[in-house]
Amino acid sequence: MKHQWQERGRPARLERRYEFDSYQALRDFLDQAAELSEREGLYPDMGFGRDYVNMTIHSDESSGVLEPLQHRLAEALDRLITEQID
Amino acid sequence: MKHQWQERGRPARLERRYEFDSYQALRDFLDQAAELSEREGLYPDMGFGRDYVNMTIHSDESSGVLEPLQHRLAEALDRLITEQID
Repeated sequence: MKHQWQERGRPARLERRYEFDSYQALRDFLDQAAELSEREGLYPDMGFGRDYVNMTIHSDESSGVLEPLQHRLAEALDRLITEQID
Repeated sequence: MKHQWQERGRPARLERRYEFDSYQALRDFLDQAAELSEREGLYPDMGFGRDYVNMTIHSDESSGVLEPLQHRLAEALDRLITEQID
């Protein structure tokens, strides 16, 4: 997993690509990411194909900047991957 | 559901947007779409957020054109939605 989160602007957002060896592992990750989204009330844009997921966490529309909430979600998503690999 | 499949070129692909009233309905659709992908061995690009899924079905890389296989997948995806609504 060589990819990391990138912070981008206009609009402020966090982006990261995840890659997977199997479609099943990818689907498990997406399921858990969706559950996490619902719990946190934050819905990143997720784009995926056979072996990758591109994640974009947007800033809150009202503030326009990335808050700790968004960074915590990014970290929680990374933990899903670590737990899957372990 | 006012959106329909659009056929686009360079590279040849089918695109459609689906919209959902609930995140649960969206997740159910994605699950079924992923199962369909595995059965057909065709992996569209799917991008989604809280209430939408953008689907892109690419043409086979070797032929570069959309074959009946891709159109059948598009129809099968639409049927998932119809079944969900019924």
